[in-house]
Amino acid sequence: MKVCVDAMGGDHAPEWIMKGALQASFSGIPVILVGDEKKIKKEAKRLGGLPSNVEIAHASESIGMSESPTVAVRKKKDSSLRVGFKLIKDGKADAMVSAGNSGAIMAAAIMTLRRIPGIERPAIATLIPTFKGHMVILDIGANVDCRPDHLRQFAVVGTVFCRTVLHIPFPRVGILSNGEETSKGNSLTREAHQLLSNAFLNYIGYVEGRDIFSGNVDVVVCDGFVGNIALKLTEGLSRAIFGFMKNDLKKSFKAKIGYLFFRGTLRNLSQAFDYSEYGGAPLLGVDGVCLIAHGSSPPKAIKNAIYHAHELATQNLVGRMKKNILRLNGKPERVLKESEK
Amino acid sequence: MKVCVDAMGGDHAPEWIMKGALQASFSGIPVILVGDEKKIKKEAKRLGGLPSNVEIAHASESIGMSESPTVAVRKKKDSSLRVGFKLIKDGKADAMVSAGNSGAIMAAAIMTLRRIPGIERPAIATLIPTFKGHMVILDIGANVDCRPDHLRQFAVVGTVFCRTVLHIPFPRVGILSNGEETSKGNSLTREAHQLLSNAFLNYIGYVEGRDIFSGNVDVVVCDGFVGNIALKLTEGLSRAIFGFMKNDLKKSFKAKIGYLFFRGTLRNLSQAFDYSEYGGAPLLGVDGVCLIAHGSSPPKAIKNAIYHAHELATQNLVGRMKKNILRLNGKPERVLKESEK
Repeated sequence: MKVCVDAMGGDHAPEWIMKGALQASFSGIPVILVGDEKKIKKEAKRLGGLPSNVEIAHASESIGMSESPTVAVRKKKDSSLRVGFKLIKDGKADAMVSAGNSGAIMAAAIMTLRRIPGIERPAIATLIPTFKGHMVILDIGANVDCRPDHLRQFAVVGTVFCRTVLHIPFPRVGILSNGEETSKGNSLTREAHQLLSNAFLNYIGYVEGRDIFSGNVDVVVCDGFVGNIALKLTEGLSRAIFGFMKNDLKKSFKAKIGYLFFRGTLRNLSQAFDYSEYGGAPLLGVDGVCLIAHGSSPPKAIKNAIYHAHELATQNLVGRMKKNILRLNGKPERVLKESEK
Repeated sequence: MKVCVDAMGGDHAPEWIMKGALQASFSGIPVILVGDEKKIKKEAKRLGGLPSNVEIAHASESIGMSESPTVAVRKKKDSSLRVGFKLIKDGKADAMVSAGNSGAIMAAAIMTLRRIPGIERPAIATLIPTFKGHMVILDIGANVDCRPDHLRQFAVVGTVFCRTVLHIPFPRVGILSNGEETSKGNSLTREAHQLLSNAFLNYIGYVEGRDIFSGNVDVVVCDGFVGNIALKLTEGLSRAIFGFMKNDLKKSFKAKIGYLFFRGTLRNLSQAFDYSEYGGAPLLGVDGVCLIAHGSSPPKAIKNAIYHAHELATQNLVGRMKKNILRLNGKPERVLKESEK
């Protein structure tokens, strides 16, 4: 299982990306660094050379963070993104990690890998810590304006992802809404609710923002506009809370002493909400494993994204999707037995 | 300045509501308890009698938490909500606080008090703590499906509310979106962005979920579906973080010692995120002061909502709205000078 890493994508590329890739390769994961060979070799020299399980795949072009995704992907045929996805398409690599322009990653993935039959709109998913473990939320930014059937498709790919990663055989799926009662929701969620009520999924109805962390739902679906706002709010609020704590520490000597004893707890907590622990968000619904990392990902986040991508490829995420989509896309002919769940 | 309190609305009505109302009356705020006179008198006896600045306004009916708002408000002409709002309409009271069915509160407020001319859709606003103080977000639940012009109206009433409560003369207004660039947003926000760019407001463009806590924006507008999800997520996440901390405390003796010294900091923090400190969320855009409290509000939250309502009435919130709406609703004829901001 080889993981392609876009050496040219990200705010600190190639340095941070390559540092993360080398760290992952040290634990035995074969990596292909995709990008300008000269630049990669120069950086590799600075970092003390490349281990034997790291290859380079040359790409003469790269796509900038502010370029228009579809235009850039179409025009730059030899971009690191297109070269990387081509390697997967040709069976020479098994997964892709990029911290580049996320619109361009999606466009290149869809153009090169193509969608899995039955899925119109690939979605970006992420794991969120809860009281009881983790849950999956999608879409967090790929599709800002959605139709009801898109939410149903997100539920299908989210269910397979949840099974694969969290090993929950029959994940509970909810639609993110402004209240649990079916009288709540907006015009999009009300129609999606009808579709999901008749789908071959463990659909439990509407869930609210606070339910995300409760551990009582495994897959939460929403349009990419709402999901992105929710994700950034989670990030912003957890940072704000740690910021408030630090401010308070400056003011009180007693709090400083407390901090010395309490810092283990605070460290556990900030780790739970630190995206770099997970590294990357998978693009679900394309015919290949693709992880999108934050543009500002530190080496640790890149390393973790590579681990995550390697695991998804090993677990045959895409194969499972294809196998399950027809069944999940269909209407239930009978109620599932407990043993089948 | 008299504040009406819906003695019949809320999960623990009338007990908790009356306790909160009495606490507020002790600091000199005249209160009118609206509801079933018999029940109120019985509860008053249990609580040791009513102070001289607390009156009772009898209402023979009340609206349950699960009743259909518009139907119930129309049918129950003598409901505590309609009786309370009628007192304001007739100039016998100056503000209303209710922890009842929020849909019914809105419907009764709009039916009895009417909208302020120029505002089609009243919105619910709330204050959120930031690194630098507080900010206002609206709509947090009154209107799930919005048109672009509604977001502009929210910006107008939000601006006046922010001036009145936070004393910021020219509040910075942003639209909640999935990115700061104008290429982001969904179809609703893109049109609203055009409208706000041409409005007589201090509009600063799109803001993201994480900006809410930064203190770099004073009024954030969004549709009520997104706003409600954002609010409940904030609530859920702050609870989750405190929950994670408590879990960790159980595991480690060192953390327990730390907690003894650190608890002042934790208390400050949980206060900052505790809705009962603010008490109620104002319904902006109706011709009267109306505060909606959580159904599960403890007495302290009701007391604080009464304080808040009394302050809004004293500061002449509605008069200021009427005075400013025509100007803010208009297009700017010239750029504002610094001295006018």
